[in-house]
Amino acid sequence: MKMTSEQKKLAKAKALEEARVTEERRVKKYMRAAIKQALVAQKNGEVPIGAVIVMDGKIIARAHNERETKRLATAHAEILAINKACKKVGDWRLNGAELFVTLEPCAMCAGAIANARVSRVYYGAPEKKGGACGSVHSVLPHSGLNSKTEVFGGIEEEKCLSLIKNFFEDKRKKV
Amino acid sequence: MKMTSEQKKLAKAKALEEARVTEERRVKKYMRAAIKQALVAQKNGEVPIGAVIVMDGKIIARAHNERETKRLATAHAEILAINKACKKVGDWRLNGAELFVTLEPCAMCAGAIANARVSRVYYGAPEKKGGACGSVHSVLPHSGLNSKTEVFGGIEEEKCLSLIKNFFEDKRKKV
Repeated sequence: MKMTSEQKKLAKAKALEEARVTEERRVKKYMRAAIKQALVAQKNGEVPIGAVIVMDGKIIARAHNERETKRLATAHAEILAINKACKKVGDWRLNGAELFVTLEPCAMCAGAIANARVSRVYYGAPEKKGGACGSVHSVLPHSGLNSKTEVFGGIEEEKCLSLIKNFFEDKRKKV
Repeated sequence: MKMTSEQKKLAKAKALEEARVTEERRVKKYMRAAIKQALVAQKNGEVPIGAVIVMDGKIIARAHNERETKRLATAHAEILAINKACKKVGDWRLNGAELFVTLEPCAMCAGAIANARVSRVYYGAPEKKGGACGSVHSVLPHSGLNSKTEVFGGIEEEKCLSLIKNFFEDKRKKV
């Protein structure tokens, strides 16, 4: 039985919608893994920001903000995740990797993501005071000679934002 | 014997000029320490970039580019120097610190400098392809709520530039 042109159109639309839903589910799954990392940071009294790096469908690095614990200005979740991923891969180039982070990366982290040639970044909440994916600086998306980094924002945005909001509200209450 | 108004003006101009010369000498001294670090990188086959961090008139951290050696995208001279300085000071805040680096910092390093609240940055050569002190991005100078980072470029520029130029010329010859 041959499909009519109308049926073909419908089948194509259905396949596209299915692919969209599958991709949305995939992206949310990894963002939830990043949120889990943010909760670890929170437990340690750190601003709750978490990140994971995915390569070939597997999480190869998980990290959370450790600035206060390590007393290190560079110990943001993304930098620690990139360092772990580089060590795992044995290369400073992470072409093909995807980074999921609960908050829009700052200039340092956006720069590190571009330097490491990460292919895609998915972030949760925007960072109006220092975000470098358009909010304050525009370090990402990046398109250089040997690399290209795409950016997708607003993934599980409410969850990511409420984590940060609650953290600072609790902090103000304690003062 | 009282100075005439003309003599006072001359004395003031002389004092200012002496202060300028002293400051220029001081800045060049630390930049030469950064250049020494760049030479260490070169010896290791790395792009020759070096950095030092000065606090209270003393060098508290020295580092050089180790991206290839460490196979780490974040192992730029500035990041390694900031990490060393934070460990030495025992704080992620480096208020009052001065960072000397042979090449204009990239977005990652400029962001790290702002995050660490480094007070002043002195760089040698501009980086037209990715500098974040005005060449491509404008992450620095930075003026945030709790920090301010001033930037001074072109310190020992020719020496810093020729290091990089020679490195890439040699590399091309070997290919």
